[in-house]
Amino acid sequence: MSVRIGIMGYGNLGRGIECAIRYNEDLELSCVFSRRDPASVRILTPGVPVYSAEDVLKYKDEIDVLILCGGSATDLPRQTPEYARHFNVVDSFDTHAKIPEHFASVDAAAREGGHVAVISCGWDPGMFSLARLYAGAILPAGKDYTFWGKGVSQGHSDAIRRIEGVVDARQYTIPVEDALARVRAGEEPDLSTREKHLRECFVVAEDGADLDRIEREIVTMPNYFADYDTTVHFISLEELRRDHSGIPHGGFVIRSGKSGWEGEHRHLIEYSLKLDSNPEFTAGVIAAVARAVHKLSLRGETGGKTMFDIAPADLSPLSPEELRASLL
Amino acid sequence: MSVRIGIMGYGNLGRGIECAIRYNEDLELSCVFSRRDPASVRILTPGVPVYSAEDVLKYKDEIDVLILCGGSATDLPRQTPEYARHFNVVDSFDTHAKIPEHFASVDAAAREGGHVAVISCGWDPGMFSLARLYAGAILPAGKDYTFWGKGVSQGHSDAIRRIEGVVDARQYTIPVEDALARVRAGEEPDLSTREKHLRECFVVAEDGADLDRIEREIVTMPNYFADYDTTVHFISLEELRRDHSGIPHGGFVIRSGKSGWEGEHRHLIEYSLKLDSNPEFTAGVIAAVARAVHKLSLRGETGGKTMFDIAPADLSPLSPEELRASLL
Repeated sequence: MSVRIGIMGYGNLGRGIECAIRYNEDLELSCVFSRRDPASVRILTPGVPVYSAEDVLKYKDEIDVLILCGGSATDLPRQTPEYARHFNVVDSFDTHAKIPEHFASVDAAAREGGHVAVISCGWDPGMFSLARLYAGAILPAGKDYTFWGKGVSQGHSDAIRRIEGVVDARQYTIPVEDALARVRAGEEPDLSTREKHLRECFVVAEDGADLDRIEREIVTMPNYFADYDTTVHFISLEELRRDHSGIPHGGFVIRSGKSGWEGEHRHLIEYSLKLDSNPEFTAGVIAAVARAVHKLSLRGETGGKTMFDIAPADLSPLSPEELRASLL
Repeated sequence: MSVRIGIMGYGNLGRGIECAIRYNEDLELSCVFSRRDPASVRILTPGVPVYSAEDVLKYKDEIDVLILCGGSATDLPRQTPEYARHFNVVDSFDTHAKIPEHFASVDAAAREGGHVAVISCGWDPGMFSLARLYAGAILPAGKDYTFWGKGVSQGHSDAIRRIEGVVDARQYTIPVEDALARVRAGEEPDLSTREKHLRECFVVAEDGADLDRIEREIVTMPNYFADYDTTVHFISLEELRRDHSGIPHGGFVIRSGKSGWEGEHRHLIEYSLKLDSNPEFTAGVIAAVARAVHKLSLRGETGGKTMFDIAPADLSPLSPEELRASLL
């Protein structure tokens, strides 16, 4: 029996979910919802309908889990509680500081509606959060470090694009090799923002724009760049399209700590990702969570949850017996 | 309120559990059981009693979780079902091929007794099993690889010690760098046993022993060494004690796979451990599982389980709210 998936929002993440369903035989794409005119939205899967987002409630009986592919800034804070009243839902809400608030409103709505709602799925928050939780629980006397990259930061790229005279831009977050080496050596250093990551920017400027001013505005931009060592390269639009059209990302969660009566032994736990496509990998995580949500819902569970609350076995298509025999 | 822990068996693992409890403020060592004369067993924690293993049932009311530190060959297949009738238990049963059989007998006993019993905790089986499960669930179109080492294999060291003329020995399992590099490059190679790991042996021979014969017996030993490239070094007992008295271990679980409509994007997930002390790290995992067992038991759950069945949040001393606010 397949889990029938609805996709709400057909951007990079929605398309990633559609692709992920292809690799999961027990998941089935039921329909896609868009705020655009459905007739204008062409999806990849033959025979699957696209509906207007406004009509989503009409399709309650055709969807086991609705995956919310909107943005964390304005879409999800509104959408996830709204849809959790009517559907089992999964989102990838990634504004770390606002997670408690988002969880509270989603949890209340999901309980009211008798549904399961899992928020903040993906790789950070998501798999990296799990890596931090597991490592901290099994090696409590230690310290953990998260490094991101090398990868494209959408938010930082957007910030550059808002500067006057900029046509387009791509920003890469890059972990500092020396910092990684010190953490792996078990030094447990205190690292400043600047010591952990570099920022490298590829910028297409308008003809005749003041490149010095643009570069200065980038490297001194508060929150985004001022606390980092930032490199700016001006390139042509053709070069940007040719060399920087992908959305790679990745990173490292490392915990170093000690054991023994006097703390005499040291250990290093490292979880790392190297991703060609950030949204497609995120979609892979969400697809597995959607499977778990369906299982939880069939067992009668309700309310808001995160990946912390999901037993790993529920993410897998294999039975507990198969898991014990093949993966344990 | 602390979780009161009993330790059954006071060898390397039992002592590791005792040390791990030090780093977990919500765990408390209640007592230690040994098959030796309790008066002859000196433990590290002041004021904690050592009892005879035979008397364990007398202390049912003083123990929330009994941790079984026996060996997988003969102790645990008998002990875990026996004690699961009377206690919540955790073991580190690691004979992969016999896990389904062990699980069945432990599950039946735990259900009968109304207790929770988690088997096969540690790092492999354990954290490496989790890494395989998670990676396979989120990246189903791919292939995973487990490499062990560099680390001491107790079983292989013992096998060498049984050879005539050998006084003592230490065997290191070492992953082949070239194989690791190919896997990390996403090649998804088919690797033979010989291509994945090397075996390096440090052997102390009796005076006048035939070193050529000992070396030949090692490298041709079926199951243990014949399928590997094995190096043998003869050293003195002093050198063995000075340079090879630790029990380090570690390894890598790597999954490489693809996403996208046509599988056009590649991803790499890597989980690795570098451990100074194999038994103390294993003990750290078990201590976190003991905490989860207590929570499950308080919720009224019973039966056999593995780490696959435990929601990550249950392993942590932090509340769900704290976890969401600090680690998600």
